[in-house]
Amino acid sequence: MELVNIKDLFRNESEYIGKEVTVGGWLRSKRDSKTFGFLVINDGTFFEPLQVVYGDALDNFAEISKLNVGAAVIVTGVLTATPQAKQPFEIQASEVCVEGNSAPDYPLQKKRHSFEYLRTISHLRPRTNTFQAVFRVRSLIAYAIHKFFQERDFVYVHTPLITGSDCEGAGEMFQVTTLDLDQVPHTEDGSIDFKEDFFGKPTNLTVSGQLNGETYAMAFKNIYTFGPTFRAENSNTTRHAAEFWMIEPEMAFADLQDDMILAESMLKYVINYVLEHAPEEMAFFNQFVDKGLLERLQHVASSDFAHVTYTQAVEILEKHNEEFEYKVSWGCDLQTEHERFLTEKEFGRPVFVTDYPKEIKAFYMKLNDDQKTVAAMDCLVPGIGEIIGGSQREDDYDKLVGRMEELGLNKEDYDFYLDLRKYGSARHAGFGLGFERCVMYITGMGNIRDVIPFPRTVNNCEL
Amino acid sequence: MELVNIKDLFRNESEYIGKEVTVGGWLRSKRDSKTFGFLVINDGTFFEPLQVVYGDALDNFAEISKLNVGAAVIVTGVLTATPQAKQPFEIQASEVCVEGNSAPDYPLQKKRHSFEYLRTISHLRPRTNTFQAVFRVRSLIAYAIHKFFQERDFVYVHTPLITGSDCEGAGEMFQVTTLDLDQVPHTEDGSIDFKEDFFGKPTNLTVSGQLNGETYAMAFKNIYTFGPTFRAENSNTTRHAAEFWMIEPEMAFADLQDDMILAESMLKYVINYVLEHAPEEMAFFNQFVDKGLLERLQHVASSDFAHVTYTQAVEILEKHNEEFEYKVSWGCDLQTEHERFLTEKEFGRPVFVTDYPKEIKAFYMKLNDDQKTVAAMDCLVPGIGEIIGGSQREDDYDKLVGRMEELGLNKEDYDFYLDLRKYGSARHAGFGLGFERCVMYITGMGNIRDVIPFPRTVNNCEL
Repeated sequence: MELVNIKDLFRNESEYIGKEVTVGGWLRSKRDSKTFGFLVINDGTFFEPLQVVYGDALDNFAEISKLNVGAAVIVTGVLTATPQAKQPFEIQASEVCVEGNSAPDYPLQKKRHSFEYLRTISHLRPRTNTFQAVFRVRSLIAYAIHKFFQERDFVYVHTPLITGSDCEGAGEMFQVTTLDLDQVPHTEDGSIDFKEDFFGKPTNLTVSGQLNGETYAMAFKNIYTFGPTFRAENSNTTRHAAEFWMIEPEMAFADLQDDMILAESMLKYVINYVLEHAPEEMAFFNQFVDKGLLERLQHVASSDFAHVTYTQAVEILEKHNEEFEYKVSWGCDLQTEHERFLTEKEFGRPVFVTDYPKEIKAFYMKLNDDQKTVAAMDCLVPGIGEIIGGSQREDDYDKLVGRMEELGLNKEDYDFYLDLRKYGSARHAGFGLGFERCVMYITGMGNIRDVIPFPRTVNNCEL
Repeated sequence: MELVNIKDLFRNESEYIGKEVTVGGWLRSKRDSKTFGFLVINDGTFFEPLQVVYGDALDNFAEISKLNVGAAVIVTGVLTATPQAKQPFEIQASEVCVEGNSAPDYPLQKKRHSFEYLRTISHLRPRTNTFQAVFRVRSLIAYAIHKFFQERDFVYVHTPLITGSDCEGAGEMFQVTTLDLDQVPHTEDGSIDFKEDFFGKPTNLTVSGQLNGETYAMAFKNIYTFGPTFRAENSNTTRHAAEFWMIEPEMAFADLQDDMILAESMLKYVINYVLEHAPEEMAFFNQFVDKGLLERLQHVASSDFAHVTYTQAVEILEKHNEEFEYKVSWGCDLQTEHERFLTEKEFGRPVFVTDYPKEIKAFYMKLNDDQKTVAAMDCLVPGIGEIIGGSQREDDYDKLVGRMEELGLNKEDYDFYLDLRKYGSARHAGFGLGFERCVMYITGMGNIRDVIPFPRTVNNCEL
């Protein structure tokens, strides 16, 4: 079918004005009188809807006049400029084919629905203004991230989802199995007989692709992952989901400075891409979801990010301990309230906090010369706190083994990882960006359930 | 660190010749004499390696001369044209910093290793020529697919991985659970107490995002998914993996013709993108992996795909039944041998086979007027057979329910899917492309284990 996207009408108006076009879309609202009427339709390609004028010269005038909100129609007619009206143009319909009417109990009537209610109809909510905007922007952010890395010749690596190892030794994991849960087989010594399982051993859903990603950085120099990760944490917050997407770039022959430069460039690139490609959606968020959003993003895109060490940050925060629920002292992990204080009040722009105590960071981070801190960085942004966490990796075989022993990690589980320090080790660094947190940040949406098409959280796995 | 990618030296030679550059990379081979030597290094950004000349004026001449294959070095020196040599230029090293040597037992010595052996060291194999080429091309194909759809304003949708429903009622699935397998809780009536499980019900890994994708096509008109899917099938073949990636576009206000136009355009776009962006890798595959590859791909990119109905195809095939292991008659599913006969011998180019018997296709495909066949299409390509399968979807509520009843599907499980036919139903169509099959097709690689970084198959879940 030769349909025009409504987006093309708006973006290339002059090409279409005065010409006959055919558009398919869904009815958002309708006004009618005895001899003519207006249909407002949206086809999902553009945030703004399109007005259609139809009259009783049409054979199916009565049918059209009875359409319910949500109905699907294919409209043909001349696109006509409407200089006096709010919208720039409308279609004067010569034909309105009804593809499918919408039943009277259609849940999305004109009134405004709460996000809570819309979560119960996740298959229909993308038809509303807010979720049209959210999920188009989500798509654009995903593409901007790919574009950023591909333009810089980073190789996209699909790290595995099902894994036989617990990457970071952290986080509760989902088990993956084909065993009959009602009759779990056991060996003679009474343990579960995983030989009967699909992979012949216990397997889980990954919590991070980083260690696998490092193996590819040691071959391709610059790589990134972009895929789903899973946490079986029983936390019912607005910021946690059991299934979410992560971006994890990794660079060989790179140190913590390079890592921060990459993170800063990426964030600015993505923000600029979305501001350029979804101006209508971003204006909507700014007006209805988060008043200061555009100003904040534009500020971030044009600021040099600040840098502060963890030790300096703690000194700053200790002076304000009376303002915090959790008091700060050297050695403690920073909470969101501290992160937001730093980025919003102290620096007024994004800030990298670097060189954290080794005790609160992962085993693979590079030990600094002070023997107390590691070459880690967290990027904090106004309104959110931490959005990116990264580090230079320990590239010295002996130091890495020493740290693993301190933490009681089983060396054999990490043979492949140690090989990278044995055969052509090179300084390298990378970071992780939680994709949904990035979408929340750029849209201003406050609940992770509202930026994932079909969110998975404790006791919630619908559709 | 200010390093130049080797790719940039080759692609923008004139910008660098005669200038000092710094390059990081890994030693592929070495030749040395008493007073000077050559290092051949690769940094993973380009298929061709770079030659480095070093002499005994360097302080660490002895250290360099003892480096093992696989060692990581950072080299600084002037890039010098070598018009008499095989390679276009080399670096005259003024400094060679050893980042990390490579232990003597480095598994990738200069001799050629079998793919079987390299599968046992999946963390090191991307350092070989073949797997450098495979995984760079894999990355480029992934990006080309995103670029194709984004340029056409398709919205990228992340459909869920963990699912409470068996999408197509087909395929063995992996269970996802946080229950203690050693002490699976039971309810009073003796059944498993899934209330104790993370999601409060049985959950699996998805086998397809299509039905979820359709809900978004009914909001955004044109969408695509690109994410992992899973099959717990106990099949140990060169074409099946338990974890693989799928692309599933879906278009509203589109029929089977539109679907085929999209599939053909996408395949041609992706092939052309790879030929343009990875000429060295493609030449390598053509020479060492699959002799006729380039000619075949160029032919596909420039042919109009053929079209034949299933009924016509069966008539053609029946005439050659003596050549087939499985004899063909109307109603049977086509095997790879039949598919390859059609695309390679009968048509000599890619061919769409359409309108299959409803009995051998999924419940959601649109019933044709003959009441016997459905508006399905498979795209067959030389060398592979089926690479894409798609259909127009049944958009009539009553017909869809009727078909579900015939097949004994539980209507309540599909309420959300039926809602799409109740509230503004529109003709729509889509297809599925197995990403790995596409990578195999474009690289000529014969085993799916060799186009997935860390493949998961029966009894195999390493790293």
